[in-house]
Amino acid sequence: MKLATLKDGSRDGRLVVVSRDLSHYQHVPKIAATMQHALDNWALVAPRLQQVYAALNAGDAVDAKPFDQQYCHSPLPRAYQWADGSAYINHVELVRKARNAEVPASFYTDPLMYQGGSDSFVGPRDAIYALSEAWGIDLEAEVAVITGDVRMGATPADAAEAIRLVMLVNDVSLRNLIPNELAKGFGFFQSKPASAFSPVAVTPDELGAHWADSKLHLPLLVELNRQPFGKPNAGEDMTFNFAQLVAHAAGTRELAAGTIIGSGTVSNKQGNLHGSSIANGGVGYCCLAEVRMYETIETGKPQTAFLKFGDTVRIEMKDDAGHSIFGAIEQTVTHYEERG
Amino acid sequence: MKLATLKDGSRDGRLVVVSRDLSHYQHVPKIAATMQHALDNWALVAPRLQQVYAALNAGDAVDAKPFDQQYCHSPLPRAYQWADGSAYINHVELVRKARNAEVPASFYTDPLMYQGGSDSFVGPRDAIYALSEAWGIDLEAEVAVITGDVRMGATPADAAEAIRLVMLVNDVSLRNLIPNELAKGFGFFQSKPASAFSPVAVTPDELGAHWADSKLHLPLLVELNRQPFGKPNAGEDMTFNFAQLVAHAAGTRELAAGTIIGSGTVSNKQGNLHGSSIANGGVGYCCLAEVRMYETIETGKPQTAFLKFGDTVRIEMKDDAGHSIFGAIEQTVTHYEERG
Repeated sequence: MKLATLKDGSRDGRLVVVSRDLSHYQHVPKIAATMQHALDNWALVAPRLQQVYAALNAGDAVDAKPFDQQYCHSPLPRAYQWADGSAYINHVELVRKARNAEVPASFYTDPLMYQGGSDSFVGPRDAIYALSEAWGIDLEAEVAVITGDVRMGATPADAAEAIRLVMLVNDVSLRNLIPNELAKGFGFFQSKPASAFSPVAVTPDELGAHWADSKLHLPLLVELNRQPFGKPNAGEDMTFNFAQLVAHAAGTRELAAGTIIGSGTVSNKQGNLHGSSIANGGVGYCCLAEVRMYETIETGKPQTAFLKFGDTVRIEMKDDAGHSIFGAIEQTVTHYEERG
Repeated sequence: MKLATLKDGSRDGRLVVVSRDLSHYQHVPKIAATMQHALDNWALVAPRLQQVYAALNAGDAVDAKPFDQQYCHSPLPRAYQWADGSAYINHVELVRKARNAEVPASFYTDPLMYQGGSDSFVGPRDAIYALSEAWGIDLEAEVAVITGDVRMGATPADAAEAIRLVMLVNDVSLRNLIPNELAKGFGFFQSKPASAFSPVAVTPDELGAHWADSKLHLPLLVELNRQPFGKPNAGEDMTFNFAQLVAHAAGTRELAAGTIIGSGTVSNKQGNLHGSSIANGGVGYCCLAEVRMYETIETGKPQTAFLKFGDTVRIEMKDDAGHSIFGAIEQTVTHYEERG
């Protein structure tokens, strides 16, 4: 089934069930008022939401209304946990290669993961707010899952069972703040502002055969200023699947329902700078840092600029028939002073 | 005023107002059912809670009941953000000195802060759960504040105004997991299991003159296995005050109401290993790592062991009259398999 959260002026928005084709939605206040409430009570709530979903798809819904993605907040407008892996090691290999460093052997067996801020995500059509272009604003197109409760020390098999919903995310990064921040040793903080998630979150069964081995085997479509920028397959070159990422997060502590775990920037292994862009037949990139790393490796320094105010980013994924699965993240980089 | 959250089987517990002397409490379901709800609607809710608090202290409350700290959850049983600073640079200086490294000059002007997990805190009288003593389980006694909404780029003066509540925290750390995790470059994750907060959170005005310059100027009392272990003054040697820590957290993003910001392990500058323990006239320590660093600096290696199953930790702070301000965190290290 497909779920979304509509903005209604409140901090948590209003949970709705969305039809498979994203054409209609239905409010479900008597089942669950918010996404977090649904996740807190999933066993009880999910079957009832599923009934509404079936009715919506059959054209039998009691109170179906036209669905418009622009009124969506992120499925969880605020969450109790957002932890982002870095499961596409190709991305890490490029980072290291660009600075002539080796990838530690442990990186292939022990997932990289950072704890992100989750108190106030922005909506999929909201601006990417920043106070300065000098921060080095970059997109990061990723896949993410929302879990139920997970016990400490859960196995990947346990973790796979706890995956409730799948969605897309733009994990905005402030590249020019990262080197100083990571050098301090405590990980990302100011370099990771508010993320935005896709308008719609879907249950894994909705993805059919494309959800296999706890990976999502479809191209992630990224546009920059309305031009194709990336289309890597999120199921390829993922060194750690979502079950492994969730189990890593639960290694020393319980995870509570509503925990969001991200894949890290999707990245497929490709030949060289020339062949990696979409224009030259490659699958392109899910962040600007990646093309800049190719440029650094081959020409000695990066040439592509980070995002500027007014630049737009679009992130989407389509099914075999070409229909949008999650709706599209569409954001424009905007000075924070313009926020109402 | 003083607020607490009583366990009631739900994920968020039940908000109560507690009398100044911690003897009685009153439910306030018609004002705010949960702590997060109160924080989300503070301007509206706080004056009404304050009326209940005044009545409780005057012995005029409508439905006062005896308050028992053992039924408390952490004031926010789960939160949308928990970010912990490292404001007592003495602690960092000892860490570096123990490994013959310099403290970078920037550490005195740019706060260290890590993003912590906030999806499932444990209660102040709940166990410190772990799967293995080999993790190197350590306490970290700290002060923390809960904020209202804070805008991106807030000044320290703005940030000071946004501090709603003050409490204590035991930020449990798994020391033997830290070196490998920090070496990966993305900060703490598995090395930081669930934190526990004091039974009661208080508004800054409740601290009188002891709350000055956004610091809490009182000794933080730590017991290990019922023996005095630390009593450093939380107002001394704090390089960054809470206003600066909150402003740092808001540097590139908004903070939403209910954000918890920690001070980092409280640590006062002292002479040497011999003179630093309470038995020898010092103010002792707020974590085992600190005495181990003194041992390493003076004897070449640490001698004090980390916590073992069955060990107990107590963290409290008292007013001038010797009365507990926040109630006491009292935790026993317990194997996770014993959790019900």
